[in-house]
Amino acid sequence: MDTERLLNRYQETRRNTLLICNPLERDDYQVQSAEFVSPPKWHLAHTTWFFETFILNRFIPEYASLEPRYGEIFNSYYRSFGKFHERPRRGNLSRPTLEAVLAYRTHVDAAITELVNIFPEDAEIARLIELGINHEEQHQELLFMDIQHIFYMNPLRPVYRVTSSPPVTLESKIGWIEIPQGLHRIGATEEIFAFDNERPAHDVQIGSVAIASRPITNAEYLEFMADGGYDDPLIWLAEGWDIAKAESWRAPLYWESDGSSWWHFSLGGMTQIDPHAPVSHVSYYEALAFAHWRGQRLATEYEWEVAAQKCDLKCGSVWEWTQSPYTPYPGYRVVRDALGEYNGKFMVNQMTLKGGSQYTPPGHGRPTYRNFYHPQMRWQFAGIRLLEDR
Amino acid sequence: MDTERLLNRYQETRRNTLLICNPLERDDYQVQSAEFVSPPKWHLAHTTWFFETFILNRFIPEYASLEPRYGEIFNSYYRSFGKFHERPRRGNLSRPTLEAVLAYRTHVDAAITELVNIFPEDAEIARLIELGINHEEQHQELLFMDIQHIFYMNPLRPVYRVTSSPPVTLESKIGWIEIPQGLHRIGATEEIFAFDNERPAHDVQIGSVAIASRPITNAEYLEFMADGGYDDPLIWLAEGWDIAKAESWRAPLYWESDGSSWWHFSLGGMTQIDPHAPVSHVSYYEALAFAHWRGQRLATEYEWEVAAQKCDLKCGSVWEWTQSPYTPYPGYRVVRDALGEYNGKFMVNQMTLKGGSQYTPPGHGRPTYRNFYHPQMRWQFAGIRLLEDR
Amino acid sequence: MDTERLLNRYQETRRNTLLICNPLERDDYQVQSAEFVSPPKWHLAHTTWFFETFILNRFIPEYASLEPRYGEIFNSYYRSFGKFHERPRRGNLSRPTLEAVLAYRTHVDAAITELVNIFPEDAEIARLIELGINHEEQHQELLFMDIQHIFYMNPLRPVYRVTSSPPVTLESKIGWIEIPQGLHRIGATEEIFAFDNERPAHDVQIGSVAIASRPITNAEYLEFMADGGYDDPLIWLAEGWDIAKAESWRAPLYWESDGSSWWHFSLGGMTQIDPHAPVSHVSYYEALAFAHWRGQRLATEYEWEVAAQKCDLKCGSVWEWTQSPYTPYPGYRVVRDALGEYNGKFMVNQMTLKGGSQYTPPGHGRPTYRNFYHPQMRWQFAGIRLLEDR
Amino acid sequence: MDTERLLNRYQETRRNTLLICNPLERDDYQVQSAEFVSPPKWHLAHTTWFFETFILNRFIPEYASLEPRYGEIFNSYYRSFGKFHERPRRGNLSRPTLEAVLAYRTHVDAAITELVNIFPEDAEIARLIELGINHEEQHQELLFMDIQHIFYMNPLRPVYRVTSSPPVTLESKIGWIEIPQGLHRIGATEEIFAFDNERPAHDVQIGSVAIASRPITNAEYLEFMADGGYDDPLIWLAEGWDIAKAESWRAPLYWESDGSSWWHFSLGGMTQIDPHAPVSHVSYYEALAFAHWRGQRLATEYEWEVAAQKCDLKCGSVWEWTQSPYTPYPGYRVVRDALGEYNGKFMVNQMTLKGGSQYTPPGHGRPTYRNFYHPQMRWQFAGIRLLEDR
Repeated sequence: MDTERLLNRYQETRRNTLLICNPLERDDYQVQSAEFVSPPKWHLAHTTWFFETFILNRFIPEYASLEPRYGEIFNSYYRSFGKFHERPRRGNLSRPTLEAVLAYRTHVDAAITELVNIFPEDAEIARLIELGINHEEQHQELLFMDIQHIFYMNPLRPVYRVTSSPPVTLESKIGWIEIPQGLHRIGATEEIFAFDNERPAHDVQIGSVAIASRPITNAEYLEFMADGGYDDPLIWLAEGWDIAKAESWRAPLYWESDGSSWWHFSLGGMTQIDPHAPVSHVSYYEALAFAHWRGQRLATEYEWEVAAQKCDLKCGSVWEWTQSPYTPYPGYRVVRDALGEYNGKFMVNQMTLKGGSQYTPPGHGRPTYRNFYHPQMRWQFAGIRLLEDR
Repeated sequence: MDTERLLNRYQETRRNTLLICNPLERDDYQVQSAEFVSPPKWHLAHTTWFFETFILNRFIPEYASLEPRYGEIFNSYYRSFGKFHERPRRGNLSRPTLEAVLAYRTHVDAAITELVNIFPEDAEIARLIELGINHEEQHQELLFMDIQHIFYMNPLRPVYRVTSSPPVTLESKIGWIEIPQGLHRIGATEEIFAFDNERPAHDVQIGSVAIASRPITNAEYLEFMADGGYDDPLIWLAEGWDIAKAESWRAPLYWESDGSSWWHFSLGGMTQIDPHAPVSHVSYYEALAFAHWRGQRLATEYEWEVAAQKCDLKCGSVWEWTQSPYTPYPGYRVVRDALGEYNGKFMVNQMTLKGGSQYTPPGHGRPTYRNFYHPQMRWQFAGIRLLEDR
Repeated sequence: MDTERLLNRYQETRRNTLLICNPLERDDYQVQSAEFVSPPKWHLAHTTWFFETFILNRFIPEYASLEPRYGEIFNSYYRSFGKFHERPRRGNLSRPTLEAVLAYRTHVDAAITELVNIFPEDAEIARLIELGINHEEQHQELLFMDIQHIFYMNPLRPVYRVTSSPPVTLESKIGWIEIPQGLHRIGATEEIFAFDNERPAHDVQIGSVAIASRPITNAEYLEFMADGGYDDPLIWLAEGWDIAKAESWRAPLYWESDGSSWWHFSLGGMTQIDPHAPVSHVSYYEALAFAHWRGQRLATEYEWEVAAQKCDLKCGSVWEWTQSPYTPYPGYRVVRDALGEYNGKFMVNQMTLKGGSQYTPPGHGRPTYRNFYHPQMRWQFAGIRLLEDR
Repeated sequence: MDTERLLNRYQETRRNTLLICNPLERDDYQVQSAEFVSPPKWHLAHTTWFFETFILNRFIPEYASLEPRYGEIFNSYYRSFGKFHERPRRGNLSRPTLEAVLAYRTHVDAAITELVNIFPEDAEIARLIELGINHEEQHQELLFMDIQHIFYMNPLRPVYRVTSSPPVTLESKIGWIEIPQGLHRIGATEEIFAFDNERPAHDVQIGSVAIASRPITNAEYLEFMADGGYDDPLIWLAEGWDIAKAESWRAPLYWESDGSSWWHFSLGGMTQIDPHAPVSHVSYYEALAFAHWRGQRLATEYEWEVAAQKCDLKCGSVWEWTQSPYTPYPGYRVVRDALGEYNGKFMVNQMTLKGGSQYTPPGHGRPTYRNFYHPQMRWQFAGIRLLEDR
């Protein structure tokens, strides 16, 4: 194993997390604008807690935490570690201060570096560090999502960065790519890093289908809106219809109309809707209603993954809802320890998404990656790709 | 088509529904003891509304409803029919009175009978009547479930019937039945009646597994309880753990301890727990935690169905949770009309159950039948059958 | 003491309660249409429970209740009596059945009659029976209120009685009646029956004020509505404004507009608003906003009572909100036993109302009577009378 | 009028507010630990907004706000000023940043100083500045209350200041001070500053009563707790009992038992309960239950004020609940403009408190001052003083 490469990657990941926070004002680190949002300061600390808890505490018997109570405060959901601070109260955590959290990061980084230098050949340590890096990368995208929401909920609507990334423009006409019918192998093989939920690799039967060459654009979604898409109960799941009515959904999250045209609040501030960009910030319910309205459907996660193996799906603009509930693969076994809580305990009531957004760290866009959210969630960068039965 | 046989079956079904209500006092018909419960009177009217709305209104242009406003009141969820009375308020419906509802049933029964006699050869009418019959049969089991809950929530704990059915006693030791590995066809063929969600029939790949010869008994579940099953977060899904804590689950629904032994409230009143009977009234979360605790798992709905094709699963004591979310079969298309709302619009956030209980009408226990409930629900007659990977 | 007169009054009161229920269908007895509503059957039982608990159980050592568990079920709030059935769940009480409740009434009536005949001279028994009678009379008006609400919440909008009482028509112009300034005695003297909250009588200082000769009419309230009364935060209490916005108040409870004119749902069904009738079913917040809009105010309960001593206030059409919170009179002491819970324990967060409605039993309209409701409540027959500082 | 003195007092008040915030870490300024708490940064801005809105915007036509949208964000409840930012979302306001809020304070301070120098003789300006100063002083005590709660809700339990003020120790035995029976004048005269709710001065009739020479001590409150004070429904108001059970009250807010002794969380951190200090952080419900338990009562606000006129009540340790709902004085008229919203619109559902705590700014402890809170609130420094009818 290449120790130096591992440490470089560790340090780069840790640095990148701080870079994401760079445009924030000090006050922004503290806000929890909704129950599903975490304050940026909490992300900084929680990702650190992960390395401390699962690596330092295990491999360095004499390891001294900067503050033992961080264990409770920055635990996200690992209930096997006893008490943990309630999620909706993360916005109360003015202490530890940002300085203390940064010091916590430095402290843990030093200890990880030392550990790797002492045990350069330890495969288990390397495996866990790789896991921690991937975990922190997931939180990098969450940071973008949460910052956007925090700024959106502020009446002053702050701008995260003036220059946004070059706009994604999709080809004007959808092409249809046929997927070879039959048995296909999906899931991660053992050679590369993957989360436990991507394994074991196994064969799935794919029918005669064709997948769209690109996601749905804002222009196409505006047609759905103009055609009464939010008013026709026949194309909605019952639970989706109820939540859409209860929360007065008339457009994707972050969209606002000034009477004549539609705008959306992005990390670059209020921007006019680009008709050629992929629609984003829709729930599973909206994605499915859209597909029903078009007389088509969403892909299963298997169809999507097989298609991605065979051709270039032009991913990286938005995550794409599949019609697959997030469940264990055949042969998947939750390891019955704390890390076993990592993915398995969320395998109910969520839907799988595939692809990746412009905020997804490189590598997480691999075809086998399984992202997952509750079907009503809209603050992630999630859009729609259609599929046709042939 | 045999018109006489259809009418006989129609009339028998309608009679059976009334027979189930027979032991009720007049006051019981009116109660909604929880949001998920419907008053018995509502069941009597809603099943009638189904025949009126989807058959009489369509095939008899001059059909006169006893009361047009019943359309709104007894619509359960068919949002394409405009306004509908909110589910949590069904307990308010003192009007129409029970007499009026019984007259409504008589009125619709007469019209259906006449319709069938006028069009004895009409296949579409026959198909819809068969659907209505099956719909009403589903409500027959719901009536048992709801009556049990209504009586349970009453401090006087009324008894529905003194003599309960002969107790189900399971064999003492679980046997393990191997399911032939490979491709198997599941789902309903076109010859017999089945709901749309059971189709299309299609092939599924089954791995090397063995299914338990019987469901888990109360004695086995008591072991789980005694071993701290409700206190170990590592064997629970996160959402299950949260709800179990929030609602203080320590045992299945309806169970109560008198300090020395466990009792449960059944349709026969408070009864001591029979160690040899199948455990019932557990949620999916409890079923899954139990399986994790045993180091085994639940079957997928496909594994279960294939097993049921091959051998006698001794069903009929409890519905059995599978680990399969309730989703459309490959090729399933929701018909975009009101009846299309029948099953498709519930295909999210629910889990499939297979088998049947002692309250399940004959025929609904067919291997292809897909029952479904939200994972936290416990008032249905649902238990646990284990499966082992081999 | 006149035993026969007491028994006659007892029996008449008990009969009247049943008469009020006479137009109900059997199904109506069971409904709780809102948390603040009780099912009619519950009223029938609870008023009976009062006699049993505070008289029979105390004075007849060998008294056998028909069903000891009624104590828990029909206790309204007397927490000193241990467990009591939660208020929002009264709609679940299908058992005891209506027949059982009527038998309970008969059983208790017989026991009370026998008790009085055995101890015809017992002043304490007579006092408690008189209290129970007055308690039941209070529930008679509650029955009318609750029936109106139960019928209102039913989409079929049943009619309680076709012929309503002759309409109350108020004089067209408000006159202003000056109240003599200075010290006045208010509160109940010891000679006649009064609730503990009406005592002790004491002197209050009244300033220079004049009270309106009649309550506000619907026509006057419509002017308030037309002038934007529901849209001007300056005339509302902050908590009133918040609830009015949250519940979208635009008119009194039970009012509905058909676009061109206003109707209200009464015990006689949907009726067009009579401009000359007193406005009813307004909350304290609406009454106060109305007074602010007119540049006047509501009376204190003392001003109101003194005015009623001096002149004919033409009461009996609606209860009238005063600006007085419901608090103990100087020298009032809660007796520290269960009956002491009668009034004292509600003396917070409620406002006093004076007067009486057409549904108020004779005698309860006495000037010293103190009715009380939370300021947001609107299902009682409550209107507005103005007062001017001079 | 003494312009220089007014400006000095203005500047001192503004400085004091900042001094209170001095021990805070930057992160603490942002937290809203409960719906009734406001973040310290919000207090800094809102008190500034008050001067800007009611003085600068009115008297300086060309006044330029630093940021017009602050009007919406830092409005507390003045609904006549259109939109205002919802109270429970104050914790989201990372922007404006603390620096921006401090710049806002500086900007407004400069403008106020200039205004006073331009119009040194303007009595209305002076009156409004005096009102703004008093308003800010009220928020100074709120800052202490909110900081204590914010720190309490943080699992790290930060300490606001190590050296707390010298402990208040009460005399061991309660003395009883007779109040002269008869008519007494209460309320503020026109000479000194007072809020509108303290006027008009008027006569009240006081009966034969004696007031305790000191508030209840922790030792006395511990007796109440030991004697089952939290378990006896007969001494509680019904709504108090319900909330005490729902929120599991067993002691005042901030109290915690380590098994052998009681501690409370104060601005000086966790401190052992001092038996001789006045009990604090009790609700009205607890205060009243305590009084009932002792067979005594709380004073009315009039009795309290008259007593304070006649003798030294040793105030300044805790606010003292009275049994008086917070209502307008006879002749009180809400001015129908935005400032008229100041006090009048809260006159419902709250109880008056008299006295003052060690965090109350000098002058606010005047006998006529009327503090008010909802009866269930416990985060203010509120205790109990008893009264006896003679």
